[in-house]
Amino acid sequence: MINFETSPERYKHWRLEIDGAVATLSMDVQEDETLADGYKLKLNSYDLGVDIELADAVQRLRFEHPEVRVVVIRSLKPRIFCAGANIYMLGSSSHAFKVNFCKFTNETRCSIEDASQNSGQRYVAALNGTASGGGYELAIACDEIYLVDDGNSAVSLPEVPLLGVLPGTGGLTRLVDKRKVRRDRADVFSTLAEGLKAKRAREWGLIDGSFPTSKFDEGVAARVRELVESAAVKKEGPGIKLNPLEVEATDAGREYKYVSLRYNREGRYADLTVRGPESDLPTTPAEIHALGDRYWPLRAYRELDDALLHLRVNELEIGLVCLRTEGDIENVLAADRALAASRGHWLVREITLHMARVLRRLDMTAKSFFALVEPGSCFAGNLLELLLASDRSYMLNDPDQAVELAVSELNAGALPMSNGLTRLQSRFLATPEKADEVLAHEGRFDTERAEDFGLVTFAPDDLDWEDEIRVAIEERTSLSPDALTGMEASLRFAGPETLDTKIYGRLTAWQNWIFQRPNAVGPQGALTNYGKPTQPQFDYKRT
Amino acid sequence: MINFETSPERYKHWRLEIDGAVATLSMDVQEDETLADGYKLKLNSYDLGVDIELADAVQRLRFEHPEVRVVVIRSLKPRIFCAGANIYMLGSSSHAFKVNFCKFTNETRCSIEDASQNSGQRYVAALNGTASGGGYELAIACDEIYLVDDGNSAVSLPEVPLLGVLPGTGGLTRLVDKRKVRRDRADVFSTLAEGLKAKRAREWGLIDGSFPTSKFDEGVAARVRELVESAAVKKEGPGIKLNPLEVEATDAGREYKYVSLRYNREGRYADLTVRGPESDLPTTPAEIHALGDRYWPLRAYRELDDALLHLRVNELEIGLVCLRTEGDIENVLAADRALAASRGHWLVREITLHMARVLRRLDMTAKSFFALVEPGSCFAGNLLELLLASDRSYMLNDPDQAVELAVSELNAGALPMSNGLTRLQSRFLATPEKADEVLAHEGRFDTERAEDFGLVTFAPDDLDWEDEIRVAIEERTSLSPDALTGMEASLRFAGPETLDTKIYGRLTAWQNWIFQRPNAVGPQGALTNYGKPTQPQFDYKRT
Repeated sequence: MINFETSPERYKHWRLEIDGAVATLSMDVQEDETLADGYKLKLNSYDLGVDIELADAVQRLRFEHPEVRVVVIRSLKPRIFCAGANIYMLGSSSHAFKVNFCKFTNETRCSIEDASQNSGQRYVAALNGTASGGGYELAIACDEIYLVDDGNSAVSLPEVPLLGVLPGTGGLTRLVDKRKVRRDRADVFSTLAEGLKAKRAREWGLIDGSFPTSKFDEGVAARVRELVESAAVKKEGPGIKLNPLEVEATDAGREYKYVSLRYNREGRYADLTVRGPESDLPTTPAEIHALGDRYWPLRAYRELDDALLHLRVNELEIGLVCLRTEGDIENVLAADRALAASRGHWLVREITLHMARVLRRLDMTAKSFFALVEPGSCFAGNLLELLLASDRSYMLNDPDQAVELAVSELNAGALPMSNGLTRLQSRFLATPEKADEVLAHEGRFDTERAEDFGLVTFAPDDLDWEDEIRVAIEERTSLSPDALTGMEASLRFAGPETLDTKIYGRLTAWQNWIFQRPNAVGPQGALTNYGKPTQPQFDYKRT
Repeated sequence: MINFETSPERYKHWRLEIDGAVATLSMDVQEDETLADGYKLKLNSYDLGVDIELADAVQRLRFEHPEVRVVVIRSLKPRIFCAGANIYMLGSSSHAFKVNFCKFTNETRCSIEDASQNSGQRYVAALNGTASGGGYELAIACDEIYLVDDGNSAVSLPEVPLLGVLPGTGGLTRLVDKRKVRRDRADVFSTLAEGLKAKRAREWGLIDGSFPTSKFDEGVAARVRELVESAAVKKEGPGIKLNPLEVEATDAGREYKYVSLRYNREGRYADLTVRGPESDLPTTPAEIHALGDRYWPLRAYRELDDALLHLRVNELEIGLVCLRTEGDIENVLAADRALAASRGHWLVREITLHMARVLRRLDMTAKSFFALVEPGSCFAGNLLELLLASDRSYMLNDPDQAVELAVSELNAGALPMSNGLTRLQSRFLATPEKADEVLAHEGRFDTERAEDFGLVTFAPDDLDWEDEIRVAIEERTSLSPDALTGMEASLRFAGPETLDTKIYGRLTAWQNWIFQRPNAVGPQGALTNYGKPTQPQFDYKRT
């Protein structure tokens, strides 16, 4: 079972150092510290274990070191920055694992960009040696890239020419959409196994600058100082500690303080319940800060994030998640009021941004989600987003057991989807005024009102409820899991597309296709034959 | 070999009738008139042959019947409108054919929307019976959909529940992005094999209206009259005839009047040359009309379109197309001046819109394109788009043999890509002002200027030219064809996304993935087992 929790003192592959406003994340991958057997992590190549540490570091920098304004990513290996995802790991992984691995590494790189855009922590990739494949894709997720000009070091995306797969961690999209490299140059670069050295890499916009070996550290440091000095906010904090989650993991599920995950493996679905906050939540930033990672909005969403990752990677056959909430609607709304009232405070901002990232992780999860609104539930404000993120929702219609929904300020833009829309906007694309009407509505939505406003899919009465839910679950879990993944990826992201949605939708879908093709993964495929004396044999039919 | 040319008198599956401003396209698929063996086209299901006729009809309506303001699509079969793509045809087709089939049918449906948006020919789907799968996807490409309310007829997308694949002809994207159906309702609809009948289909926005059986023809006719009366332009024409292309097809290639296509099958590339117009091209709409389909811009692009379709479907192993032009730059620019000067004339507009569609067909073709700019070439104006659409370009740099490029008004917006950008805008995303500078430049671009302005990728001198081109071709054709397809799909469409690009990028990529998955096409897959007494067996791992 893969565990997604770690912390700097347990890192095997990274070293995190803080010096005032500057953090340095040094990559020093230990060859033998792999997540699975059968490969060695040479040349700073990575597997999921390496990326889990990176994701942790990016997250901790935001909560534990808010004073940091610039993060430098560099390598402790001589003459190599990072060789990308380990090929032998990819070659020996199942299709499902490859896809999940790529999704997680994509989310980590998007979290770097989120930290830059929303938390003012700028990332500088200091390439003290060659960055190839996923190594360059890590660099291109940073704000600025500097490459040593030693006559040898290069940036490259050798996936297409050497491996017959795509640079699938956002590289192609970021080349043309983020760095806006001319498409014919991107074509040349992406088919050139050896890549480009500093001079041409700079001319073509692949890097931001270069320094000779003797001036490299100094040149990067000078640029980092400029970035620190130009930062809009000089110092925030002090940070709060992110302690390990307390979870009771059994074969039947995972029990956290606010989240319960229970597997029904035979039925191929899971029940995921989020419990709302207590009534005594703090309301001022100082109180919230004092509570730290025990504060409900942070703790509950960290637990939800962990549960989602476990479902994805460790429970492959579970295809459907039934989402429930339990608690007092008023307590959820009180939490949202506190978050909205102090949105200018760094910690409150970080907590809200984290909630938004976890909800986006849910949007991107290749499982079906049904929200079930039952007595005692609290789908309100931030937790209403769970319902809006679901593929469909069922709300009990029983005059004797009233159930309600409610909106808060957080539904109006603080928790955006990766396409930039709120989930209410995404729901009411045909009638945008309805999203406003929902937000302007005074009071809660009982089942009738929820139906009238279009907030739920179905509202069975108490006589039908059990049967209808049971049949819906059975039907859903009987369908082709692949067709559902493709369908949900198409229906969840109506409306505008962004860099993120292009990476998760267009690029990832093509990569998943290629990851199935004999030309990549067949016995004579390029990925299979990499590093062997045999040559790949392609079926040259163009599709 | 599949032939893409047809005309109404040769249609087997459609009947085209014109009555003033109203055209009726009646679908009456002949079971046994299939493009391949092994299946029967029951219940108005279709194969590529049926769609080639539909594409031809849509095209001819624009050129031959410009007076038509409304096109009604209906079925001549009782109680069934159209059952979609034939499942047995799909089940027995190669992966490459399935992908090419879906791409062509997608282009046909986009051409319906193009006719509506740009030519004022509105499409009405008159569903006199059930429209399932591709049948409903055809309807949803129309402007309005009316369904008979007979207690039985329904609209449905049964692909996910019955076949384990996606509705891959734009259905999912058009549901949520064009008709803006609420995503949870789209989820329910897309997993409901039997679909929805008139009442709920209308409530959910899947159709625009319904009529009981006895009032159906009358109700549709009344709505069609309203649309005719509200049309901005009442009458245009008379039309021009689209005569069969004259082509000499041999095993070595295809020779048209203005286009030469020559296969180098051993090298897995083709040479595609477009010859520019003669010097005596007409300049007024009346003269252009008199020349009809012999007018260079129409004829050359019809030939190019046909050549591209042949390359896609009949020459699968050819992975690279070397694009050349031959002729006098001034003649191309003169043609563009005439087109730009009379852009308000219906025929000139249609000719330009057709050129734009053919260029988009090139953008969407899963082959690499290299533009080769050699002495005697005429990459100017509309033909410069061929170079800009290419994955890369090579321009000879030889003072003794000057070669030149040139721009015209047509490069400024008349020939947009499917993402809505011009190819110059797409090229200069990082520096939008450069697109304007290129357009504002007086005179032609010699090799040095073309390089300075960023118009070409490489400019080898005459000593290097042959070797460099040869090596570039060899390298390109040695790479994994699948990786190239995914790479080009990612690099060609930087910038904004539209309904069209989402269909061709996101939806199609997911469908291609699913079309490879054992759950669909394996021995126990749902597509393989459709209509057999055996049940599909899924590997339920969610990916």
